Amino acid sequence: MNKARVAVLPEIKTPAERPFQIREVEIPPLADGAVLGRMVMAGVCGTDVHILHGKVPVRTPAVLGHENVARVEAIGGDTPLYDVTGKQVQVGDLITWLPKSCMQCYNCTILGDPAKCERRIGYGGWVVPADQHPYLVGGFAEYVWILPGSDLVVLPPDLAPEAVVLGDALRIMVHGLERIGGLEYGDTVVIQGCGAVGLMGLILARDAGAGRVIVIGAPATRLALAREYGADETIDITQVPTPERIQQVLELTDGRGADVVFECAGVPAAVAEGLEMVRIDGRYLIAGHYGDAGTVPLNPHLINRKQITITGVWSAANKHFLRGLTLLRKVPLEKLVTHRFPLDAVNEALIAAERQETLKAVIVP
Amino acid sequence: MNKARVAVLPEIKTPAERPFQIREVEIPPLADGAVLGRMVMAGVCGTDVHILHGKVPVRTPAVLGHENVARVEAIGGDTPLYDVTGKQVQVGDLITWLPKSCMQCYNCTILGDPAKCERRIGYGGWVVPADQHPYLVGGFAEYVWILPGSDLVVLPPDLAPEAVVLGDALRIMVHGLERIGGLEYGDTVVIQGCGAVGLMGLILARDAGAGRVIVIGAPATRLALAREYGADETIDITQVPTPERIQQVLELTDGRGADVVFECAGVPAAVAEGLEMVRIDGRYLIAGHYGDAGTVPLNPHLINRKQITITGVWSAANKHFLRGLTLLRKVPLEKLVTHRFPLDAVNEALIAAERQETLKAVIVP
Amino acid sequence: MNKARVAVLPEIKTPAERPFQIREVEIPPLADGAVLGRMVMAGVCGTDVHILHGKVPVRTPAVLGHENVARVEAIGGDTPLYDVTGKQVQVGDLITWLPKSCMQCYNCTILGDPAKCERRIGYGGWVVPADQHPYLVGGFAEYVWILPGSDLVVLPPDLAPEAVVLGDALRIMVHGLERIGGLEYGDTVVIQGCGAVGLMGLILARDAGAGRVIVIGAPATRLALAREYGADETIDITQVPTPERIQQVLELTDGRGADVVFECAGVPAAVAEGLEMVRIDGRYLIAGHYGDAGTVPLNPHLINRKQITITGVWSAANKHFLRGLTLLRKVPLEKLVTHRFPLDAVNEALIAAERQETLKAVIVP
Amino acid sequence: MNKARVAVLPEIKTPAERPFQIREVEIPPLADGAVLGRMVMAGVCGTDVHILHGKVPVRTPAVLGHENVARVEAIGGDTPLYDVTGKQVQVGDLITWLPKSCMQCYNCTILGDPAKCERRIGYGGWVVPADQHPYLVGGFAEYVWILPGSDLVVLPPDLAPEAVVLGDALRIMVHGLERIGGLEYGDTVVIQGCGAVGLMGLILARDAGAGRVIVIGAPATRLALAREYGADETIDITQVPTPERIQQVLELTDGRGADVVFECAGVPAAVAEGLEMVRIDGRYLIAGHYGDAGTVPLNPHLINRKQITITGVWSAANKHFLRGLTLLRKVPLEKLVTHRFPLDAVNEALIAAERQETLKAVIVP
Ligand SMILES: [Zn+2]
Ligand SMILES: [Zn+2]
Ligand SMILES: [Zn+2]
Ligand SMILES: [Zn+2]
Ligand SMILES: [Zn+2]
Ligand SMILES: [Zn+2]
Ligand SMILES: [Zn+2]
Ligand SMILES: [Zn+2]
Repeated sequence: MNKARVAVLPEIKTPAERPFQIREVEIPPLADGAVLGRMVMAGVCGTDVHILHGKVPVRTPAVLGHENVARVEAIGGDTPLYDVTGKQVQVGDLITWLPKSCMQCYNCTILGDPAKCERRIGYGGWVVPADQHPYLVGGFAEYVWILPGSDLVVLPPDLAPEAVVLGDALRIMVHGLERIGGLEYGDTVVIQGCGAVGLMGLILARDAGAGRVIVIGAPATRLALAREYGADETIDITQVPTPERIQQVLELTDGRGADVVFECAGVPAAVAEGLEMVRIDGRYLIAGHYGDAGTVPLNPHLINRKQITITGVWSAANKHFLRGLTLLRKVPLEKLVTHRFPLDAVNEALIAAERQETLKAVIVP
Repeated sequence: MNKARVAVLPEIKTPAERPFQIREVEIPPLADGAVLGRMVMAGVCGTDVHILHGKVPVRTPAVLGHENVARVEAIGGDTPLYDVTGKQVQVGDLITWLPKSCMQCYNCTILGDPAKCERRIGYGGWVVPADQHPYLVGGFAEYVWILPGSDLVVLPPDLAPEAVVLGDALRIMVHGLERIGGLEYGDTVVIQGCGAVGLMGLILARDAGAGRVIVIGAPATRLALAREYGADETIDITQVPTPERIQQVLELTDGRGADVVFECAGVPAAVAEGLEMVRIDGRYLIAGHYGDAGTVPLNPHLINRKQITITGVWSAANKHFLRGLTLLRKVPLEKLVTHRFPLDAVNEALIAAERQETLKAVIVP
Repeated sequence: MNKARVAVLPEIKTPAERPFQIREVEIPPLADGAVLGRMVMAGVCGTDVHILHGKVPVRTPAVLGHENVARVEAIGGDTPLYDVTGKQVQVGDLITWLPKSCMQCYNCTILGDPAKCERRIGYGGWVVPADQHPYLVGGFAEYVWILPGSDLVVLPPDLAPEAVVLGDALRIMVHGLERIGGLEYGDTVVIQGCGAVGLMGLILARDAGAGRVIVIGAPATRLALAREYGADETIDITQVPTPERIQQVLELTDGRGADVVFECAGVPAAVAEGLEMVRIDGRYLIAGHYGDAGTVPLNPHLINRKQITITGVWSAANKHFLRGLTLLRKVPLEKLVTHRFPLDAVNEALIAAERQETLKAVIVP
Repeated sequence: MNKARVAVLPEIKTPAERPFQIREVEIPPLADGAVLGRMVMAGVCGTDVHILHGKVPVRTPAVLGHENVARVEAIGGDTPLYDVTGKQVQVGDLITWLPKSCMQCYNCTILGDPAKCERRIGYGGWVVPADQHPYLVGGFAEYVWILPGSDLVVLPPDLAPEAVVLGDALRIMVHGLERIGGLEYGDTVVIQGCGAVGLMGLILARDAGAGRVIVIGAPATRLALAREYGADETIDITQVPTPERIQQVLELTDGRGADVVFECAGVPAAVAEGLEMVRIDGRYLIAGHYGDAGTVPLNPHLINRKQITITGVWSAANKHFLRGLTLLRKVPLEKLVTHRFPLDAVNEALIAAERQETLKAVIVP
């Protein structure tokens, strides 16, 4: 295990330009508390597509891949190593590791919100560039070299590696659910969008006490999947125009509107539409606008009159990932990870993700 | 339908004294907005046992039976009649009706808490005595005469009558869940007690996002039922003494204690025990002390040091019953309603309930 | 006291058209539980101006005046009469009466939100037209005839009548404060707007634990008043353009933004501006958009990224008015009630209110 | 400044045994990021008395004094040093430093509760023993040597040193206020106990929107002080027995009980008494049981029936101290710091504190 093959992104280019190059890299000796991991699976994420379009900054040359499962090949030094829950990490364990909040900045300490850490770092583009030690700093590779002090999670033996790549989207929704104050038991929930975040929102709402879940999105195959995972109703945005979508939600809710709406669509117009779907005193979560997609005309009178509560959610803290394991253990995930690519096909994987042919693609090196 | 047979309780006596007498009563003509209901099922509740022991006051002579399902036989007058959700009530509908909060007292209006209404009235002992119009004022009877202005609920067609009698216990736990701020997704929940309230707490917790549920109680058959309804672990109080019970909960929770504990046992000592089982910053719900069972020594330092939040829950508002329908529609309830008695056997039903031979007994007239 | 002079609004016309006519009306005999009140003071409200412009519907012919203080002249019948807190109402008491929620509709009962009652009625335009019994149905009159079952409040003896007219704006802010979850002790609060609602928001924030309050508005005299009532900083919108206003708030908050922003301006653009002023995880209350003033382009990414919580507040429940008495008892209010008009000058009062020459005008008949 | 006089506690002994010895210690050279502080004032705390009675463990030999204000004499190294809010620390600044939470343990990260840090360290007994580098590890000394990475706070220029010693009690109440969900505007608050924590609770409640505050305690002089700081009513426990105290609170609250009760008495019986004083749906904060004072019989039925919410509060996070500065800036504190002792009189100071002759004593070296 002296060398590792790794997909390097020398500079930002679109997927069509096939920007990744497979290189072979010397594996540096392990420092105390560092971990060498044999990559088992790395998720391909919408964020990776954004990176290749220059919309999310990374440090190039980069190794992408931030939804990672690895098997512990070696641990540096003799000191026992623990994961974020206090469990000892052992050679042979299946692990993931989470974005590292500094726990010292204003947002981490005074606001108590590590998801908004001012100095957060993560493998897959943000920790150090790929031409600096320890080089193996992202999941699109055969091996990763995990820095001492990383936020490791030893995966329970009953958890599939697929759970981790889906857990990246799920933890955002667990965090979002916390930010809206949880569901009131029996709430009717509308989900706008049926990508990975929307579907995780659906499955989470189902398991967190929703009485009914309505999913609005496209294409039809994705909506069929939503129904399979528990959506009571689906509305196809390619078939039903906005005013009728609003009308349908009102009809499904005795004319009152939904208790809760999760925006997981990433389209500004969805917010205007969704605010018409929420009931008096209802709650609206903006979870799909990680990127800046511009403005939408909104009417403050509507918010004032219906007393709607709107909130946003940004990434997640470690606790939200851990809480999400509850769901990932019990829901069958095979149908959600729709595409598997070898490391050599990383360019193809990103092209497929960009074309939204995949619900969730993974690299299995 | 001029006469109705009804089980009258002339005065307070224990179940062993067989206090109920079956009488035949003239059915008064219907006033505007009144409803005549043919009783379909009436639950026998622990509260009824308390009434017969003089621990919960009622107005005698009484007709007990406060967990009622009836079929609408006739509606007084021509004005359309609506249930609490705004749905029109029709002859032939299966209905229940909830304790009526006055919506005018301090607790109803200023505190906004109809469950604590200062002038709440309910069929089954509290509305008017059985020797006053309209006589048919409880569920242990062939017919009920439901006063105008009652809080009716038209049952959805897919809902079994059994759901309503269990809904009486469930709504308390829905209310309790609201009072502790809902579950945080993935919470480990301990349930102390496995009577109807405890089992409803278990099933609710399971459906409201609990990651793991531990039920503590007896007898073994009841615990087996708990496992069938989703308990991950059960602890038999007849087999495991208190210190070991605490120890087991700690071991099941990495030594930290449960996120949430529901007390549904009704025994003061359970509170002292349960506070040892809850984690730092955890939450403790007292739901089992509807009756005064005396004091227990508690240590304020424990609450201070672990920053435990304790709260109590008293009955429920209409909204909690309605929210509970979510659960009652999806969970099979047959095994929970363990005993069925004809109206003539009401004394036997109460004896069985007092002996805790039943999980839930019903009168089917 | 057989006749009463009353300012009748025969039809909707603008203030400039001097729409009110003073008429003399027979006082109907009192029904059981009704109250005849001698008007002491009636506030002239921005809502009255909206009514005259046809933006808020009323039932004409109307008697306006919904911020009322009267002295009890007579009580119908012999039954003791109680106010909403349970205090007995006596002849000679100074009283007000609040908009009456039905306490039976879906919003009152299931949502538990009487401020959103579907059938709310209020004196001053909404209870019955002025050509129907009991005729004296608004505050711009010598006497009012208050219907049985009204939500009366006996004013504490140490409370000035002025408190009630200001209490109409204050209760909205007490309600709004509740809806944002209260202030965290020491919060920096920005108030957008310095009309009656904004100033009440300022004084409330000061008394509810704000560490610092920044008021943004105009004209300069109003801002001077804001400083007198406790504003730490004021920003004059006629002198400082939007980008610099945002910049000033950021500079006053170490670049982080305010913990809480209250929108009391009624201008859609204020919402876009205010969202730039609020910190990460901060809270934004929309209190100024009672009327529909159109849309404003907002960026969902901003809400998502800063995890801002936005909520709206609509009117108030009785409890919020009662809670506001705390403040009205201790703050000197003379400077806030800037203009006093006799009943004959009601047209002049409305013209002055429309021109925003007054902070708060009252009719003293 | 080569040597510093310091009050060393060689071993645990009661105040009467005069356990402190004044020694002279070499000041070690400053490491990078370390701070040498000239002590300005150190509070003598009830916790110090507990330490001398062996009820709160410390590492001996110890330097006590955990409520500290110092002037920065020197800063080690050239790197700019920042306080917890991001403000640069300069020679000459008046500073304090807070207990240091590790921000890595389960409670700090997963629970998000640094006040319950599993590895918290603090000057004044808990960081390192006094015979280990850097020796000057508590406030009862001429100088302190503050370790790199400490949680410093640069005091605003308008803040008196007294504010910091009172801030130690205040931050607990700011934290407690957060844990009960803040005050609802206008709440009636009962404070049980009028030591430093109780008085801080009083002043905080007053400034955080309480409508009325009732203080229960002794002696009469302390209650007079409470009235001076805003208590509306006081009840002297040496004059009024428990049942009458409960009766008085009920009478002051229309028979309903207080909205909120703060227990700051440290006596278990106070909890039983206080639960009788709180209204339906009211809240009870246990803040006075930092030490284990044993059990008290409590009735779970009372909690269940009144739906009381009880919670505890343990110490505080940095944010609570910072939030408390709001109050400490505006309230005159001279009367609260009742006794000042030179360093040589540290034994006398502890004797006075033990006898509760002082409200707050300080060491001014
Ligand atoms: Zn991702
Ligand atoms: Zn950070
Ligand atoms: Zn029952
Ligand atoms: Zn009531
Ligand atoms: Zn008004
Ligand atoms: Zn209503
Ligand atoms: Zn202290
Ligand atoms: Zn820690």
